[in-house]
Amino acid sequence: MYEVNAPPAGVAAALPVDERFMTLALAEAARGLGRTAPNPPVGCVIVQGEDVVGRGFHPRAGEPHAEVFALQGAGEQARGATAYVTLEPCSHHGRTPPCADALIAAGVRRVVVAALDPNPLVAGRGVQRLRDAGIEVTVGVLEAQAVRQQAGFRSLIVRGRPWVVAKYAMTLDGKVAALDEGNGAVSGTEARERTMRWRDELDAIAVGSGTLGLDDPTLTTRGVPGGRDPRPVVFDRRASSDPQARAWRDGAVLVTAPDADATAHEAAGITVQRADSLPDALSGLVGLGLSSVLLEGGPTLLSAFLAQGLVDEVRVFVSPKLLGAGLSPLTGPARPMHEAQALQDVTVETLGPDVLITGLLQGIPRV
Amino acid sequence: MYEVNAPPAGVAAALPVDERFMTLALAEAARGLGRTAPNPPVGCVIVQGEDVVGRGFHPRAGEPHAEVFALQGAGEQARGATAYVTLEPCSHHGRTPPCADALIAAGVRRVVVAALDPNPLVAGRGVQRLRDAGIEVTVGVLEAQAVRQQAGFRSLIVRGRPWVVAKYAMTLDGKVAALDEGNGAVSGTEARERTMRWRDELDAIAVGSGTLGLDDPTLTTRGVPGGRDPRPVVFDRRASSDPQARAWRDGAVLVTAPDADATAHEAAGITVQRADSLPDALSGLVGLGLSSVLLEGGPTLLSAFLAQGLVDEVRVFVSPKLLGAGLSPLTGPARPMHEAQALQDVTVETLGPDVLITGLLQGIPRV
Repeated sequence: MYEVNAPPAGVAAALPVDERFMTLALAEAARGLGRTAPNPPVGCVIVQGEDVVGRGFHPRAGEPHAEVFALQGAGEQARGATAYVTLEPCSHHGRTPPCADALIAAGVRRVVVAALDPNPLVAGRGVQRLRDAGIEVTVGVLEAQAVRQQAGFRSLIVRGRPWVVAKYAMTLDGKVAALDEGNGAVSGTEARERTMRWRDELDAIAVGSGTLGLDDPTLTTRGVPGGRDPRPVVFDRRASSDPQARAWRDGAVLVTAPDADATAHEAAGITVQRADSLPDALSGLVGLGLSSVLLEGGPTLLSAFLAQGLVDEVRVFVSPKLLGAGLSPLTGPARPMHEAQALQDVTVETLGPDVLITGLLQGIPRV
Repeated sequence: MYEVNAPPAGVAAALPVDERFMTLALAEAARGLGRTAPNPPVGCVIVQGEDVVGRGFHPRAGEPHAEVFALQGAGEQARGATAYVTLEPCSHHGRTPPCADALIAAGVRRVVVAALDPNPLVAGRGVQRLRDAGIEVTVGVLEAQAVRQQAGFRSLIVRGRPWVVAKYAMTLDGKVAALDEGNGAVSGTEARERTMRWRDELDAIAVGSGTLGLDDPTLTTRGVPGGRDPRPVVFDRRASSDPQARAWRDGAVLVTAPDADATAHEAAGITVQRADSLPDALSGLVGLGLSSVLLEGGPTLLSAFLAQGLVDEVRVFVSPKLLGAGLSPLTGPARPMHEAQALQDVTVETLGPDVLITGLLQGIPRV
């Protein structure tokens, strides 16, 4: 869910050795973001002494796990080495054999794990299996970063719904759009580029029928080298949106009410998912293999999600300009200030002219 | 002789020598903020070799200028020394004799000036006078910082109105208050402390009759060691505010329409200033010796100021929480996004849980 770039060389060198190599493993894992669901993004590096002798990441469900690629790269040099893995190696036979066994078979001496696997099929058993084989295991190195990177997978496994990230851009007087439409973006180029990276990294992108009708957005990832498009999900209770809108590309999902007439959408080859409520709709997305959703809709959709506690994280660009009258990012509910929902794990970053503020509304599920 | 807080040793040492000593002079000047109007805040340090041998600041109008205090402190050591002054030394006889003459008489060898004086009575003549006396003069060291510190004085001299700083605190969904009143502050302790410092540093604090009626604010400076209260200015066109409100302490100013019945306010000893318009009202404040105004009013007053181009600087606390329905900082005017007013010289700072974003809407008058 989060890209973890390797820190500048000077910074990396200042980290304790375990954190230094785990940073590399997290950067490996990030290469799979948006591509692995319903599996987690996982990265692995194999280290002999001070040298990285193998590295790998899980590219997509059905393909080998990160450890397998890293061990292949290391070959005989895996013997006696230390393996850094961002998620506890699996201990069960899924579509691939257990990675714990592969590490044991390769003769690895020590395994450093960022975070335990919340999957009840693993949940500590992977670590136990390694220890039973006499391998030294360290757990918890850069755990918070890893957990954040795995938020989608964790949400899916523990809560049975995708991790929902709401994104919007507002002026310094809190307006996301002018009263007249089509008159320019709120934020600058850097913010747009970052948004495109998020589209590349999250499984789905969601808007409401209002945004679809007003903007006819493509909801694609543009300008990201090697990027891929998130799956478009349109919340349209009455199925009133134009089935010819640009968002309806291959794989697009219409979320609509059980009794809505979606004949035209079905005829256009659009995947129609029916749900009684937003929580039901989100649970339904799990069945489509979606573990994370970037909510880029307007105030109506965002307010509906928030009112039901369905937003896990927010990423807000604040643009240093004043508009005056305009649309607010949220329209409700009304509540006293002391009941405002506080963000946790807040980050602040300047991005070109804009300020990016992010934070969590829900804790990320652990084990 | 006055004590001054030097910047952290590491920071200061990394600066070129002129900037290092000018930083000290600016810190001296800052001690007069909010106290010198209609004069500027000015600081001066006298340096022999690497040693500060004198320092001073202008404490208030009618008292000696910064250079005089600094020269007094230096005594005989001023001979051959370098003087750092945040504003061009005056060349004219005002309430005190010309500081340029004092520097010449003291035998100073070199004078470093941050910014020229925009006062047409000075405006380069102070520097010329020093040069004519054979003193080496350098102009422009940390000029931007000095100009910003002198914004009120410059506005007053060049534009004939105070520098207006609008301050508000909003949630991450752009709300400054809930729909129900009296239910808690938007931002945290650190933001409140910073606001109190601004109240100490600006000449006046302004609100509208709406804020006065809703909150009955004291508009005082609290918790600032050695702090003093800004002069309260209440914009109340109809003179309908309660003359017993807490803001009406000594020196408070009612700004009202020419035909409003302010009998009750006059009877309560409140200074009544009549104006046809907001620009007139601001010009009128100059007559009261006010060079800077901290605008802490609600959306109505702020929007009125902005619509007329009367806000020079904004300081906004963004609090990482989501409210839902609530009041926006601005209510108008309506305009397309590409006509939003962009801030210049933007700064971003985290303050406890909050993010402080500041910027200028108007350039600060120079010479």
